[in-house]
Amino acid sequence: MINKERLYNRLLELGAIGKQEAGGITRHSFTAEDKAAKELVASFMKEAGLTVREDSVGNLIGRKEGRNPEAPVVLTGSHIDTVCNGGIYDGALGIIGGIEVLQTFNEQGIEVEHPIEVYAFNDEEGCRFSFSMFGSRGVIGTIEQKDLEMKDQDGVSVAEAMRANGLEPEKVGEAIRPKESLKVFVELHIEQGRVLESNNLSVGIVSGIVNELWLKCTVKGEAGHAGATPMDLRKDALVAAAEMVQVIEREAKKTGTTVATVGRLKVLPGGINIIPGTVEFTLDLRDLSQNVSEQVEKEIMKEFGRICEERGVELQTEILQRIPPAPCSEEFQQAAQKACSQIGLKPFTLPSGAGHDAMQMINICPIGMIFVRSKNGISHNPAEWSSLEDCADGVNVLYYNILDLAVKH
Amino acid sequence: MINKERLYNRLLELGAIGKQEAGGITRHSFTAEDKAAKELVASFMKEAGLTVREDSVGNLIGRKEGRNPEAPVVLTGSHIDTVCNGGIYDGALGIIGGIEVLQTFNEQGIEVEHPIEVYAFNDEEGCRFSFSMFGSRGVIGTIEQKDLEMKDQDGVSVAEAMRANGLEPEKVGEAIRPKESLKVFVELHIEQGRVLESNNLSVGIVSGIVNELWLKCTVKGEAGHAGATPMDLRKDALVAAAEMVQVIEREAKKTGTTVATVGRLKVLPGGINIIPGTVEFTLDLRDLSQNVSEQVEKEIMKEFGRICEERGVELQTEILQRIPPAPCSEEFQQAAQKACSQIGLKPFTLPSGAGHDAMQMINICPIGMIFVRSKNGISHNPAEWSSLEDCADGVNVLYYNILDLAVKH
Repeated sequence: MINKERLYNRLLELGAIGKQEAGGITRHSFTAEDKAAKELVASFMKEAGLTVREDSVGNLIGRKEGRNPEAPVVLTGSHIDTVCNGGIYDGALGIIGGIEVLQTFNEQGIEVEHPIEVYAFNDEEGCRFSFSMFGSRGVIGTIEQKDLEMKDQDGVSVAEAMRANGLEPEKVGEAIRPKESLKVFVELHIEQGRVLESNNLSVGIVSGIVNELWLKCTVKGEAGHAGATPMDLRKDALVAAAEMVQVIEREAKKTGTTVATVGRLKVLPGGINIIPGTVEFTLDLRDLSQNVSEQVEKEIMKEFGRICEERGVELQTEILQRIPPAPCSEEFQQAAQKACSQIGLKPFTLPSGAGHDAMQMINICPIGMIFVRSKNGISHNPAEWSSLEDCADGVNVLYYNILDLAVKH
Repeated sequence: MINKERLYNRLLELGAIGKQEAGGITRHSFTAEDKAAKELVASFMKEAGLTVREDSVGNLIGRKEGRNPEAPVVLTGSHIDTVCNGGIYDGALGIIGGIEVLQTFNEQGIEVEHPIEVYAFNDEEGCRFSFSMFGSRGVIGTIEQKDLEMKDQDGVSVAEAMRANGLEPEKVGEAIRPKESLKVFVELHIEQGRVLESNNLSVGIVSGIVNELWLKCTVKGEAGHAGATPMDLRKDALVAAAEMVQVIEREAKKTGTTVATVGRLKVLPGGINIIPGTVEFTLDLRDLSQNVSEQVEKEIMKEFGRICEERGVELQTEILQRIPPAPCSEEFQQAAQKACSQIGLKPFTLPSGAGHDAMQMINICPIGMIFVRSKNGISHNPAEWSSLEDCADGVNVLYYNILDLAVKH
């Protein structure tokens, strides 16, 4: 359906723009690389027959007019920035794929009821200013003054970077899209996990983006001499924390859907012959269902309480972040299932464990996401890779999906 | 029996010598503080009627002659150095206590068959040159050329430090004591643990110094996205390591005598939303019985193997140190039990979990150790404290113990 070679060449062309180091590319917001990438993407949009504009927060937008220009707009696209030393698919595939779908429509003379726009979102990864999803936050209207004051590691603020790129920080509000003007936002993205790979499938339909609970836990026991303190006189903070790590895995596994991870763990004082007195660790807990997530959290905390009592240690917890889940709309999912069938793919549904611009967009319109298989589940890494065939499958699903959503009222 | 006030005043006087910082004292080998401490201790030895000499590795020795000057010598004493920011009892009590016993003998006109010597061992803690028990290693004759080349953090070698203190590194061999010239070495020391405190006892008889196995374990799993990787597709190195930490505790507890500690644990890459790919941790395993220790080690390794298989992770282990146990002699233990009874104390036997100069001395003569209760089991810390009464009890036990050992052939 779509032009596979053009898709691939454009991915490679965009992937060549960025600081090149350690095998990957770095393309941060409001940099020379970012500017060059937007110029290239704008040229693709024009080749596709789209009208191109940049909004007040630096999102690049290509529009194909609808038969009814006043009808709610069908949005697609993804982010144009990369992490440090990232790959060429994360973000880029959703932009190039969206442009490819619209260019194919135009080549095939397909006219649809609803206008369709492709967003190249500015700064989703948040690597430069430690503030993610800047572009989509701009679209939903939640950028605050303090966000504009965030600084990069050279001391340059978001506001200063915007001005250096011809944007006026005072006008961020102009990027906002009213709810009634939008029909749906569909994002095509690489999976960044191994679910499709382990199911031997090229494409998946996302049921929703999971919630995200980040906790910091501090276990306080009693430090002591590793040789001179018998086992039954110990309050070893690490043995207690190790039991907690086991509990987290066990409770997450029980549901079949929850993922829970202890990614950081620090032992104090940290001497080879000193019983750990304090252990700090983080918990990252996610599920598509807020109810299930809360139930797992409750069970974990109950077990933590038991461990503390049995071992005579104390626990302090601090919530670092609690983001609700973002379910994909039923209308999108049904259209996407139909689209898969149309090109002979088995419709397969999976949750997104990673965060995406769609998490912001759900605040102003229904959302949908289509995933493409990632080799070994790797992303944020030069080894990030999806085959040309898989990318083409994803874009073909997006083609039918957008066609369906943009034709219907 | 012994002079409690003199004992205490001398402990305080010696405890006043050292770099004073953060509430504790620092008295490292071959420093101005070390020299001042040796001069003070030499003056105590002379007051006690002992002949004083310094050997070729910097040990200070006070001798009370025996009726038979050729009889094997009864040795007592402990180390004169401290850790960084240490307390005033660790090491010092065994030296001041030994001098007190001999001064009391002399004041009471007690003559014994065997010569008795009090050693103030040089550099047991090993804080300056990262090389412990230098003085007692000198006495048993295991100091090698490479040991003399060890450097402190200012780049000064042991050999240079010796020369600066009037010692000749070429003559370290002169400190060696032939096996046949020694009868026993008895060391009085603070417990550095809470066994005596939890048994409400002032003094304990040491059954032996436990062995010490130090292992470094590296668990290799697979890093991944914490959100995008379902629980059943993970090879989480930390969950595997946490299970290993639990196994270590369980297997050590089974014996009732073993102590096992994971004091260090490092998680890589260490991102809050990244599944741990690698975990490094240390194991400190000790028991008085080499057999029991080896059995526990074997069980732990068997369980580690099972965990690796079940979780699809790999384990590498590296032996950092393996020191055999040092049992206290039967003759010493019987004499010490009698000594406890003589002053109305319940004879109570416990292992030493910490290492001591006696671990070196066992290579050339039978050893014994007497422990004094440590408040909260704390040592290597300014909060290290033993009551005057407990110290006096310990020195009185040493008095009868030494008397017993030095009278008999």
